[in-house]
Order: sequence, then C-alpha cells, then structure tokens
Amino acid sequence: MASYNENYEKLQSSYLFSEIAKRTKAFQEANKDTKIFRLGIGNTTHPLPRVVIDGLKSGVERLGRVPQPGVPGYSGYGDEQGNTELREAIAKHYLNRGVKINPQNVFVSDGAKSDLGNLLSIFGKDDVVAIQDPVYPAYLDTTVMSGRSGNFNKDTGKYDGVVYMPCNESNNFFPEFPFPLKGLVDIIFLCNPNNPTGAVATRSQLEEFVSSAFENCSVIIYDAAYADYILDKSLPQSIYEIPHAKDCCIEVRSFSKSAGFTGVRLGWTVVPSELGIDGTNELRGLWNRRQTTFFNGASNIAQDGGMAVLTKEGQEQCGRIIDYYMENARIIRDGLDKIGIKYFGGVNAPYIWAKTPNRMKSWDFFDKLLNETHIVGTPGAGFGPEGEGFFRFSAYGVRENVLEAVQNLKNLKL
Amino acid sequence: MASYNENYEKLQSSYLFSEIAKRTKAFQEANKDTKIFRLGIGNTTHPLPRVVIDGLKSGVERLGRVPQPGVPGYSGYGDEQGNTELREAIAKHYLNRGVKINPQNVFVSDGAKSDLGNLLSIFGKDDVVAIQDPVYPAYLDTTVMSGRSGNFNKDTGKYDGVVYMPCNESNNFFPEFPFPLKGLVDIIFLCNPNNPTGAVATRSQLEEFVSSAFENCSVIIYDAAYADYILDKSLPQSIYEIPHAKDCCIEVRSFSKSAGFTGVRLGWTVVPSELGIDGTNELRGLWNRRQTTFFNGASNIAQDGGMAVLTKEGQEQCGRIIDYYMENARIIRDGLDKIGIKYFGGVNAPYIWAKTPNRMKSWDFFDKLLNETHIVGTPGAGFGPEGEGFFRFSAYGVRENVLEAVQNLKNLKL
Repeated sequence: MASYNENYEKLQSSYLFSEIAKRTKAFQEANKDTKIFRLGIGNTTHPLPRVVIDGLKSGVERLGRVPQPGVPGYSGYGDEQGNTELREAIAKHYLNRGVKINPQNVFVSDGAKSDLGNLLSIFGKDDVVAIQDPVYPAYLDTTVMSGRSGNFNKDTGKYDGVVYMPCNESNNFFPEFPFPLKGLVDIIFLCNPNNPTGAVATRSQLEEFVSSAFENCSVIIYDAAYADYILDKSLPQSIYEIPHAKDCCIEVRSFSKSAGFTGVRLGWTVVPSELGIDGTNELRGLWNRRQTTFFNGASNIAQDGGMAVLTKEGQEQCGRIIDYYMENARIIRDGLDKIGIKYFGGVNAPYIWAKTPNRMKSWDFFDKLLNETHIVGTPGAGFGPEGEGFFRFSAYGVRENVLEAVQNLKNLKL
Repeated sequence: MASYNENYEKLQSSYLFSEIAKRTKAFQEANKDTKIFRLGIGNTTHPLPRVVIDGLKSGVERLGRVPQPGVPGYSGYGDEQGNTELREAIAKHYLNRGVKINPQNVFVSDGAKSDLGNLLSIFGKDDVVAIQDPVYPAYLDTTVMSGRSGNFNKDTGKYDGVVYMPCNESNNFFPEFPFPLKGLVDIIFLCNPNNPTGAVATRSQLEEFVSSAFENCSVIIYDAAYADYILDKSLPQSIYEIPHAKDCCIEVRSFSKSAGFTGVRLGWTVVPSELGIDGTNELRGLWNRRQTTFFNGASNIAQDGGMAVLTKEGQEQCGRIIDYYMENARIIRDGLDKIGIKYFGGVNAPYIWAKTPNRMKSWDFFDKLLNETHIVGTPGAGFGPEGEGFFRFSAYGVRENVLEAVQNLKNLKL
C-alpha cells in the first residue's frame, strides 16, 4: 500500500500571504470605493526592456526554422546544465567583478527557487540546516519536507532540529556564525541582499562568516537573487569575491529580479568543483547527476533571452529598471522618514524593513496601515519569530501608485 | 560536517549514451569520409509549426508592454500550478476524448522528466517501486537516488529492492501486474506508448492492470508523454479513459513529443483529488504543496505557446508533424521487413523495437549495424536486462536522412 511522505505533516500551513489576501479582501468589501495600494509584493512589475524582448523573439523565431550552416534553427533537448554559450556568458559576467568561475561549474536553472530546494537532496538526510530568522519561507519549508527537522514548536514558533540564526538590530541584521553548535551545523542558507530585511552584508561580515563555515566544514547555500541591486561598489555581489568561498559555498542566482524574468524562469547555480565533502566526493558531481536525472534544462527561449540580458546593452537596459525600483525604494524611505518611522534596508536591496511604531505587533500594524492609509504591506512576523515588530515594504510597483501610496502615509495616526 | 546523499553511491554510471557516442566517434575517425545516420535519438527534429511560433511570439511581446484594460501585458510570477487558461484548455483537451478532468487537478510543469522524478518525494521513503523492464532509465535512477532501492546486483543487472516487471514477446511487451508481491508494491511506473519498445497497451490490458493496482492500493505513475502518437481511435490515450483510474493513477503528460517542445519545456501532471492514501491524506494536496514550495511555475512564454498548441489549428499543425515522424517510422519498418528483421512497435508510437538477428547481443548488433550500414541506433540492453537481444530505432529525424539510411540497410550481412 502506497504511503505518503510524513514530513509534510509537520509543515505549518503557509498562512502569511493567504491571510494578507483575506484581510485585504474584507477591507475592500467594506470600503468598495477605496483604492488599495500594494507595497507588499516581491513580484516584478516593469515590462522587459527592448533588447531582451528582441533576444527572446529571436529565440522563438529560430525554433520555426530548419537549421542551416551559419543560421541557427530548431533545436530540441539541450544540455541539462544549460547552453554552453550562456554558461560562458555567465562566467564572463563574474569576471567583470574579478571573479573566475569555470563555466563547467555553472548550472543554468529555471530559477532560484527550484535549485534552493532541490540542492538539499544531494546532502545527507541527517545534515543539520541553519537558516536566518527572519527568512524567506522556502528554505525552511524545503528543509522540513526533506525530513531535516523535528516538529514545529508552537511556544517558540520554530521547528525543532533546525538552527535559527537571529538577524536583528543588535547584529545589523547579519547573523553570527552559530558557534555554540560548532561541528553540528552542516548546511547554512544565507540570503544576501536579504529578503525580507533588505540588509546587505559588508565584505568583512562575509569574510568572517565564510571563514567560520570553512573551518566548521559547513556548506553555505548562498542565495544572491538580488545581487544586482548592490550598486555600492565596495559591497560584494558574489560570495566568490570572498576568500575560500569556493571551498564551502554554493551560489544560487536568478534573472528574476535583475531582469524581470520572474515569469520567464531562468537562473543559475554555481557548484565549484573545489567543493568537497569528506575528501572523497565532490558536490559538483552529485549536483550534475541530480540535474541530469531530474531536470531537462531551462527553456531554450528563456536561455536566448538570458544571453540578451548579459550583453552590454542588456545590462544597461536592465540596470535602468533596477534604478526605477530603487527610486521607488527611495520614495518609500522618504515617506517613512517624514512620519518618523524607523526602517532598515532599501539601499542596495529592494526591500525596506520598517520597525512598527510603539512596539506594535506586525499584524496589528498591518490592520492599522490598511485602515488608515489603504496600503498593504507584509507583516514581519510572517518571516519568523525575529520578524515580530517589523514590517516589509517592497520597491516593486508602478511609480504613480508608489507616489500616491506614500502621500497617504501622512494619514497614519501615530 | 556536511555529508552527501549516500544513495548516489549505488548508482551505476549511465553508460548507454556515452558509450554510443564513444563508439560512433571511433568509427567516424577511422572512416573520415563516411556519412553516419543517426536513427537512435529520442529528440525532436522538426521546426515548430507557424501557429505555435506565433503563440510563443505573442507571449514574448506581451512581456514588453504595460498591461492595459483588454490588452494583456507584462506579468511576473504566475501560479505555480500554471495559468488558469492553460489548465482549463488542458481539461478541455481531455474532454475531447470524453474524459472529465477538473482543471484544479492539472499541474502545469516544465516537462515530464522533472515531475516523474519529483513525484517520488511525496511518497513514503520506504515505498516499494515497480518499473517495466526494459525502461526509460530516469524512473530507475530517481528511485535509487531517492533511497528506494538496495544495491545494484551485477549478476542480475538489477537493483535490489526494486520490482522489475518484464516486458517481452511472451506478454506482448505489456507487463503483468506483479501479483506475487501483492500488497508489497506501492508505486508503479507505467510508460505507454512505451519507450523503448514502442508497445501500446490495449484498453483491456490497461483495464486489468488498473483494476489490480486499485485492489492492491498501489499508485500508478502513468507516463503518457507519447500519447498523441496513438492515432488508432480504439486505443486509450489517457489512463483516465479506464474505470477507477482516478482512484489510483497520476498521469504525466508532455508537450515535448506532441508539439516539439523538447527545448521549450512544458508539460503537465494530473493528480486527481480522488486519489487518497490511508483514507486520511490526499495526494493532490501533497503535490500542490511540493510544487508551490520547490517550483515557481513553467515559463509564461512556454505556457502561451502551449495555449497555441491546444487550439484547433495548433492540433492540426502539430498533428501533421506527428504524421511526418510516423511516416519515418513506416519507412524504417519497411526497410526492416525487406531484410527480414523482426520488429515490434513503430505504430502509434515513434519507437521501433527490433529483434537482433541470430540472437546477437544488442551491443554486437550496434557495432555490426554501424560498420555495415553506418546507422547508429540504441542497443536494447541499455534499457534493462530484458532489452538484451533488442535494438531501438527512433522515428525522429529528417526524411531524406531516414530514406538514405534505410537504403543502406541492404548492406547488412545477415
């Protein structure tokens, strides 16, 4: 008789976004003529730039032609690891930051989310996982579903068996390495620039963390989906700008937020061939085997679009869209400044992590903000226990809506 | 200290296609001016038809526009389960065959291969898996990698703990239900039309198998990637044409072979809400949770292309390409008839399963065929122990090459 994966029973139902939707809907029904402003979403809103549209279109047109010498045409299955030209273009993209990556260690994906979850499958089933708190929920859920946690503890709001690394004002929202558990933490998810806090690690913070992970024989799964929002040249974009990172870090990247590919689906993961476990196996080989068995490559159309993104023109045009979002962030920060709400982030990252006034609970602030300003944001408590008392604003959105929303902030009764 | 998934150590290196490449390369180097004919690949070769190209292009162009009332524009993340319109179009596609599927039970994917492997993750870790022998290698590899096998036994050529269901001449290449293991087989992979044998199950064969699975509380993962090659109207295309199938079958489908989407990446999986385990849990909910956590939806461009495939015009144009491949199959069958080689399949399926002459071993026949006719095919032994003594020809390819190759068959010294 078939049975089910019992780890799924441990999962708490993901109530954050459904609860937001429910409360928003109730408000709209009670206030039919009121315009609601959504400043809570992490989804891109700006159309793709021309050069990328052209790249995607030429990718489509190619598929309608018989290949001819010198003129690329229809192709079926590509390499599961991605097209060679794209892997090379990604390596070159790293080289622009002074980072040498072997294209053979670049695995093109259909986006960061899949890889972040699937990477766990190449590790031992009893490996202990550490996450930041607050955190993007998927790391935790995939950890639980893959059987690397105990039960959820309602008192602490945490899963047993998972190491939570608090990120709060006292550590500038960057975690200390979990040294009390030295030797006991095997896999560490690190998200930088951070979702939800908008914190961006300094070089020395990363150096210290990587060096500790290396000593501790831990592997860091480094989620740098927002790397291109780091415009300050003194801050590392890639973990491989840090010494020893190739010996202990897997980097997961995405075209979603840097090029508006949230719906197009394209990303990549670097698993350096230097990265070994026990001296006998190397993780790159395991990931290669996983991907060639469970995956058939990213869409060739998306890959042709990715090539256009990585051209000089593509980088310029995509960069202007990032500037647009970051101007949204500046407008939100400015609005929060004016009403005296303290916040973090929103510089080199598209998220603003506001401290609720008067130590209000996140969800109480959600209701207050919706009622008084008609703005929908994301309660920080939804990202983990350390998120209580915080609130996430997102820079994604259409400018005129952001401006109008921020005007409304003055109606907040503090 | 991080550790690795030890199940990967059990895996035999996948030597089939690399060995083919190696021997082919050696032959080409020794015979520089000889033209080699590849009749072994399972990859589509025909350009996409016009209506599908137009659908994909309009999907791309939409992403370059700000959405306006009545004019769809840029969209970011869609539902992980797929766009509502596409799920409804797929349900309607089933209805054309008289099968009622709730669109809510249709999960759009980036192709069958990912889902076939990932589905195992929602089942209990000790569930026993049965596969056909010979078989498409991915079912077996994902079973091993997910820890549902013992070690590989070199004497039998099989993994311990996996149930092999022989498919051979004596059962018309359709397996008996593994009754000797009644109650002990939990998950059964069934591929129909079959890769590699080209066998297509009759209605009564499927009825008997499904009814046994239902009695036995087994779940069938039904891979129908080649369903659209079934042109004989008396043969079921979908497992849901069979009574009780919704109570025990998950169906995995693909646009790859039916519409040339091998590189575009699009498919779907139906997990009926009727499908329960232990009476308490339902698999649809588990798969929904898996997909929303580990996956971010198929590319929206590919989904727009899929909508075009499912229009009347799309079905006609894609149907003509299937006819083209099936004419290739007829030409190959004809050539084999002429030289007196016995074969199976190649009707309602793009694969022809030839019996090697004089009980030759598959790999010996590979060498003989390459040397004497310059044709590269796929040795049946590479698909499992029961494939020994067989050889797979594929109908994918350009017509003129197929014709020329088949001409060469007369040079085979039998």
